[in-house]
Amino acid sequence: MSHHAEHTVTVDAPVDLVWDVLVDVEGYSRIFPPTREVNLLEESEAHQVARLHVDVGGEIQSWVSRRDIDRRRHVIAYRQLETAPIVGRMGGEWRALPLDADHTQLVLTHDFAAREPVDGKVAGRFTFEEADAMLRAAVERNSVADLNAVKTEAEHRVERTAVA
Amino acid sequence: MSHHAEHTVTVDAPVDLVWDVLVDVEGYSRIFPPTREVNLLEESEAHQVARLHVDVGGEIQSWVSRRDIDRRRHVIAYRQLETAPIVGRMGGEWRALPLDADHTQLVLTHDFAAREPVDGKVAGRFTFEEADAMLRAAVERNSVADLNAVKTEAEHRVERTAVA
Repeated sequence: MSHHAEHTVTVDAPVDLVWDVLVDVEGYSRIFPPTREVNLLEESEAHQVARLHVDVGGEIQSWVSRRDIDRRRHVIAYRQLETAPIVGRMGGEWRALPLDADHTQLVLTHDFAAREPVDGKVAGRFTFEEADAMLRAAVERNSVADLNAVKTEAEHRVERTAVA
Repeated sequence: MSHHAEHTVTVDAPVDLVWDVLVDVEGYSRIFPPTREVNLLEESEAHQVARLHVDVGGEIQSWVSRRDIDRRRHVIAYRQLETAPIVGRMGGEWRALPLDADHTQLVLTHDFAAREPVDGKVAGRFTFEEADAMLRAAVERNSVADLNAVKTEAEHRVERTAVA
């Protein structure tokens, strides 16, 4: 069972400023509270590979994410190369679309599936239906939180620029 | 209690084609099943005023909507001039943002509030909390349905163009 989800928020900041927040993957531990640590494993102009350590409901989980970076279109396509315990597949895009000089439509998409069960269990603990429901709920919750984290950081940077 | 909501979907069609679907308000009765009839009351290059007759849970309701049309940015700002019975305020934007030559990010936003109660009741029947919950649920449901209706229609037009 494969899912596709799209979430969006309007950011009161220019697209270049939103983009700066998105590409700074090492800064994610500052702006997304559940992200405890990010280790950049590879980097070029067009891609990043990073290991993320994230608090998932009180338990620190870790996965490796590849991000392909399209600077012209302001799109980052991400996919987990090594997934968290209940995740079979997780990928999607961050998109920063200019609305006008001062506003950006920020979009986050997810394409995902829970992990296939082994001996009837996912991660040794859950039925496939449970893992699927947990994952859908997490994507819903995290989408809203992640979009708002980028929005808040970008809008703070606008305020700091205005004051400076 | 005022609410803001944003919903989005990726459309596999060029922005100009999505835009044609959005501006054709008289065509809404064809593509949105609950919309039974649309009467265009005023029209210029930059605006439309239309009366919509819509099936809301089995009951035909009617309201008048003004749409301000920004063709350059592909944005339509709408607001109800005369609202449905439980609605105090309803407005927002349709935004069609080009992702590339063949794909469009379609966004629908809502800014809304339930109608203030008179003698403790909204529309003579509901508490404010009930009206507020009904309206929030309707916005959630209709956003998904309306985005998908535009997506489906625009993608059909791409197929017809490809076949022609």
